Amino acid sequence: MAKEKRVVMSVSGGADSSTMLAYLLSEGFEVHCVWFDYGSTQNPYEMKAIQAITDHYKVPLSIISIKDAMSDFKSALTRKQDIPEGYYNKDNMSATVVPARNIVFISLAAGFAWSIDYNYVALAIHSGDHFVYPDTRPEFYNAMKEAIFEGTDKRITLLAPFLYYDKRDIIRKGLELNVPYELTRTCYKDQPVACGRCGACVERLEAFWLNGAEDPIEYEDREYWKTVSKEYK
Amino acid sequence: MAKEKRVVMSVSGGADSSTMLAYLLSEGFEVHCVWFDYGSTQNPYEMKAIQAITDHYKVPLSIISIKDAMSDFKSALTRKQDIPEGYYNKDNMSATVVPARNIVFISLAAGFAWSIDYNYVALAIHSGDHFVYPDTRPEFYNAMKEAIFEGTDKRITLLAPFLYYDKRDIIRKGLELNVPYELTRTCYKDQPVACGRCGACVERLEAFWLNGAEDPIEYEDREYWKTVSKEYK
Repeated sequence: MAKEKRVVMSVSGGADSSTMLAYLLSEGFEVHCVWFDYGSTQNPYEMKAIQAITDHYKVPLSIISIKDAMSDFKSALTRKQDIPEGYYNKDNMSATVVPARNIVFISLAAGFAWSIDYNYVALAIHSGDHFVYPDTRPEFYNAMKEAIFEGTDKRITLLAPFLYYDKRDIIRKGLELNVPYELTRTCYKDQPVACGRCGACVERLEAFWLNGAEDPIEYEDREYWKTVSKEYK
Repeated sequence: MAKEKRVVMSVSGGADSSTMLAYLLSEGFEVHCVWFDYGSTQNPYEMKAIQAITDHYKVPLSIISIKDAMSDFKSALTRKQDIPEGYYNKDNMSATVVPARNIVFISLAAGFAWSIDYNYVALAIHSGDHFVYPDTRPEFYNAMKEAIFEGTDKRITLLAPFLYYDKRDIIRKGLELNVPYELTRTCYKDQPVACGRCGACVERLEAFWLNGAEDPIEYEDREYWKTVSKEYK
């Protein structure tokens, strides 16, 4: 007998989606994970984390390849001669590869959920992303929720349980739920051990510290974040 | 000097998108056409029409391949054992292949428009599709328009000039604009000459008749539509 609440969510192997997975299971959802392979910055360490987390929680994982469409986008960017330089800042280069990426992923997740007769799609968007990514903001989310609901003939409802959480709130929730953070992967760099210096590592180490907890993964440099954190005193 | 109004629209080679292309040009838009290759029912006659129409109007055409993601959807459908039989009706089988297809295409068109620094995405949705496809209805469109606008940081505005048109209204507008309908392709069947008997041919022939005009393309059977039309007396 299928559960009443069946949710598709995308996983990245990181702290946010791993915590949301634990949260949705704790709320009684049947969860089906998807990973969007868009052929860009993903690395084998992320895939290892995704496998470990979905195995830990014994949830199915489907891979949806979006590589060909994304390469069409990239070549459109490359072809265009008058892309304003400096339009994207360095930290934000992934956005140049796939504009509207989150919108595309939500749409694909909704189509996938419909395909397998699931009735929810959950997003791990949170307030820490609102400044950089317009397609994680509440005004986007609220409109997109209605569009997906109407556009699927009221089959699919979007959820964003962490919409107003920051990273500290997410880690607090995950610690409550005993998320196996030792299996997760957050670092942007293409190396087996997390660097501790990239934006993602810094934000994560700070969030654990703010919760009075120790991040269980290994870091090359576990102290660097304190030198750039606005929270650490 | 780029025009102020730059619009991405998807073309199918049919009457609706060809008319919208003519309409947008008549309204002063710079138009960039895209075709979504999702590896399904598209046939070489459609592609020939798409090329002929975009050549006629001297507008660029980009192809965005979504085949791999769509095949992942299909295999999800195939894997699932309990798809309700008869859930989709026969005329509507294309919908079983790609649930939420229009939502996905709008999202990709928005990402593409952003990639090439265009500020509008136009949809040829019309009232004749509202009953069958939820993602062509006004309540979907209005929410999606807001989601795309907010999710692209107010870069991209959706347009649907034919939202409340039926097929007759579209053909009337196209006749006013001298759309070269002889270049277009509407028939669902995989054959060089339009059949005149499928749903698409019937609707088209009726719409020309309702405008007191002759459809300039060749048909195998140009009279059949009268036997099934509710409008013909």
